Amino acid sequence: MNPDFEKFSDGLVPAIAQDYQTGEVLMMAYMNEESWNYTLESGNATYWSRSRGKLWKKGESSGNVQIVKQVFIDCDADTILIKVEQVGGAACHTGRVSCFYHERKDGEWVTISEPLFDPAEVYKK
Amino acid sequence: MNPDFEKFSDGLVPAIAQDYQTGEVLMMAYMNEESWNYTLESGNATYWSRSRGKLWKKGESSGNVQIVKQVFIDCDADTILIKVEQVGGAACHTGRVSCFYHERKDGEWVTISEPLFDPAEVYKK
Repeated sequence: MNPDFEKFSDGLVPAIAQDYQTGEVLMMAYMNEESWNYTLESGNATYWSRSRGKLWKKGESSGNVQIVKQVFIDCDADTILIKVEQVGGAACHTGRVSCFYHERKDGEWVTISEPLFDPAEVYKK
Repeated sequence: MNPDFEKFSDGLVPAIAQDYQTGEVLMMAYMNEESWNYTLESGNATYWSRSRGKLWKKGESSGNVQIVKQVFIDCDADTILIKVEQVGGAACHTGRVSCFYHERKDGEWVTISEPLFDPAEVYKK
């Protein structure tokens, strides 16, 4: 049993990254077979960037890698869940812990967290 | 700001369901705009079943609905996260708490949880 990369024509499987200590859902991105294999071999979460059309070694430029602690797959093998240690404390490109920082309250979207760092500084390379 | 249902040609946005108390990731499914609106209006998680091509009111036949406690969207509005109360205690069609019950350990897949109930009984209708 492995992720079913053949299920959809794009060869991609969604991968949820969750903080291995707090349980907070940090982000969701996609893996193809290459990034899946690279994730397992390197121990660092590696995705496939749909926008850039290339392997996305999370944290490669910022140093804020995701160290994989546990790897799960769902019942029909079309979704991956990884529990990670988020180096630098922030998974989101905005500098926030989690990408899910908009919460819907009373019919409106509220920003529920602030950046830990200035992404312009961290991603300046 | 709303989920970007126009981003991909299928009109679907992935939605992660997380237990609002334990933080356990229960499942991931897809919402289209109709299921999104229905989720907000009804307060029960409602997905779009890709395999059946129809609205999927989670728990409609089993009674094991997901009562929505919190709703989040990610930084680029293409993934939904909902924190839910899972009635009946199990989100997976196998009767398990979570669909992510296969963990990769030492290069092999290990089943890490057992069903809470017999799905043949619960879904017999």
